[in-house]
Amino acid sequence: MQLRSIESIDTVACVGAGTIGGGWAAYFLSRGLRVRVWDPSPVAGEKLARLIDTAWPALTRLGLAEGADKDAWTIHTDLAEALDGAGFVQESAPEDLAMKQDLLLGIARAAAEDVVIASSTSGYPMTDMAEAAAAEGLADRLVVGHPFNPPYLIPLVEVVGGQQTAPAAVDWASDWYRAIGKSVITMDREVPGFIANRLQEALWREALHMVNEGEATVDQIDRAITDGPGLRWPLQGPMLTFALAGGEGGMAHMLDHFGPSLLSPWTRLTAPELTQELRDAVVTGCDDEADGRSFPDLVTARDAAIIEIRKLVGELRATLPGAAEHEAPVGGAA
Amino acid sequence: MQLRSIESIDTVACVGAGTIGGGWAAYFLSRGLRVRVWDPSPVAGEKLARLIDTAWPALTRLGLAEGADKDAWTIHTDLAEALDGAGFVQESAPEDLAMKQDLLLGIARAAAEDVVIASSTSGYPMTDMAEAAAAEGLADRLVVGHPFNPPYLIPLVEVVGGQQTAPAAVDWASDWYRAIGKSVITMDREVPGFIANRLQEALWREALHMVNEGEATVDQIDRAITDGPGLRWPLQGPMLTFALAGGEGGMAHMLDHFGPSLLSPWTRLTAPELTQELRDAVVTGCDDEADGRSFPDLVTARDAAIIEIRKLVGELRATLPGAAEHEAPVGGAA
Repeated sequence: MQLRSIESIDTVACVGAGTIGGGWAAYFLSRGLRVRVWDPSPVAGEKLARLIDTAWPALTRLGLAEGADKDAWTIHTDLAEALDGAGFVQESAPEDLAMKQDLLLGIARAAAEDVVIASSTSGYPMTDMAEAAAAEGLADRLVVGHPFNPPYLIPLVEVVGGQQTAPAAVDWASDWYRAIGKSVITMDREVPGFIANRLQEALWREALHMVNEGEATVDQIDRAITDGPGLRWPLQGPMLTFALAGGEGGMAHMLDHFGPSLLSPWTRLTAPELTQELRDAVVTGCDDEADGRSFPDLVTARDAAIIEIRKLVGELRATLPGAAEHEAPVGGAA
Repeated sequence: MQLRSIESIDTVACVGAGTIGGGWAAYFLSRGLRVRVWDPSPVAGEKLARLIDTAWPALTRLGLAEGADKDAWTIHTDLAEALDGAGFVQESAPEDLAMKQDLLLGIARAAAEDVVIASSTSGYPMTDMAEAAAAEGLADRLVVGHPFNPPYLIPLVEVVGGQQTAPAAVDWASDWYRAIGKSVITMDREVPGFIANRLQEALWREALHMVNEGEATVDQIDRAITDGPGLRWPLQGPMLTFALAGGEGGMAHMLDHFGPSLLSPWTRLTAPELTQELRDAVVTGCDDEADGRSFPDLVTARDAAIIEIRKLVGELRATLPGAAEHEAPVGGAA
């Protein structure tokens, strides 16, 4: 399988220009790429122009690539025309399996042979989405490249192939997204919802249960995150967060101390049995992630992040449109 | 029930001086209060001094109350002596039900009658913890005041009473924590794990399942949050986040569009049925939370927060001890 060299790519195609597809287009433009957009809606161009205008100041603040031009895009209703000259294709159609199957077949037929085609799907396995393309032997370049809203600001992209995808295409897509500044997680197997959405979805379902049972309001659920664990998560994820909560004993202490609470009804999700093997996998994983940084260093980093994020969020709440009555004290007073 | 006036309180007691109890002590000191600490360990004082020293620069950066003095604490091994003169008691003993029951009974016997006693428990219902105190008719001032690690930086405190707790004590504790600058969620019923820990625990259990099944590594799980949804949550919680992902159609559009995925195996947690009633409760809750702020205003706020948090976290990763090899690009390059 011969794939195009990443360095040679100056033009990409976005198939579908909704919130996600349009967000991708804005991001690609900010990286100095030209973007060819396919969308059948007669108002798609107008909406996309608005989306890019809204996103551009943010992208400018994060740093534009040399030659980035917010107007370097064209919109097309003919798919082959949109793909012409594109060195990479990002499909972001609505989350409808049959529609994705048809579109991916159409894209695979029309795109140049050495071009990788990624889907923004938030949950479908590529094996299912590629069914029609696979029947024509065209599924080897099809990968999932799952972004997070807004794709022009959130760095995470989850990359995973289907059963017919060539491993080289998965590797290429991972390298490509990294080259344009994304934080890439490459999965070695298809899992419904990938990783981040599975974690979000567990939280979301428990939240729905709580609302359903009258245990918490929507506002309480949001505040439980924004003013609680949410402040820790931009710097250190949930695993490292728990490891630090274990004090100098780290994740091993944490699992020994709080392991029994896995059996308690603290959520409607049944936990796996905490076998020695699972315990070791988690402890070793945290050690790997800490990568030699000491407990005090990690705590210093966490605290610095929380302070600055609190100050920042406090300022934002106070200064943004309509925020006067939503102000929250940052320091508080005795 | 006659409870002490909040304004009159200049001294509080911390029962237990571990990571949580010590963190509370540091916070109370930063609010200009004097702190009397009970801990039976012969090295507790030494460890507490270290913890306060570590926390003080952070607390200073967040803003100290007038007269705040990091040395305004004493440590005691006699409980009655520690409680002498304290206008509020925060119990933060290890998470052991029998120990908490004994301690809360001891505190309730020794503390002045008009003093509210809060427990930092991360999950026990007060009805269970207050069993021994209730048998002596001393449970009416016992409430849960559940903080998050580190208690000197994370604003959230969840307040809830047990069956024997006087509603006035729950109200008093909520007012007290707000007066010292905390973000308070007052629950009207006992739910195991309260709110934030239930949400965290659902995510944590799904993460453990993924590690257990070899679907994701510890590092991938953490990065899926830090570089993904975690960047959105300090400003807007998971409910409002989903409402914005629905575009101008908001949460109603989101539920209609993604409602069916509640049935998909995106996590091991079974979702509740999305009845019309639940749908309405969630939509109305999001509207209430938005409180008249428009969709573009909320998006502007979100984007501003993500940009600044990304810049901040990028800087922190680059400058903190041992961080050189953990640097992550913020802007990326084409």
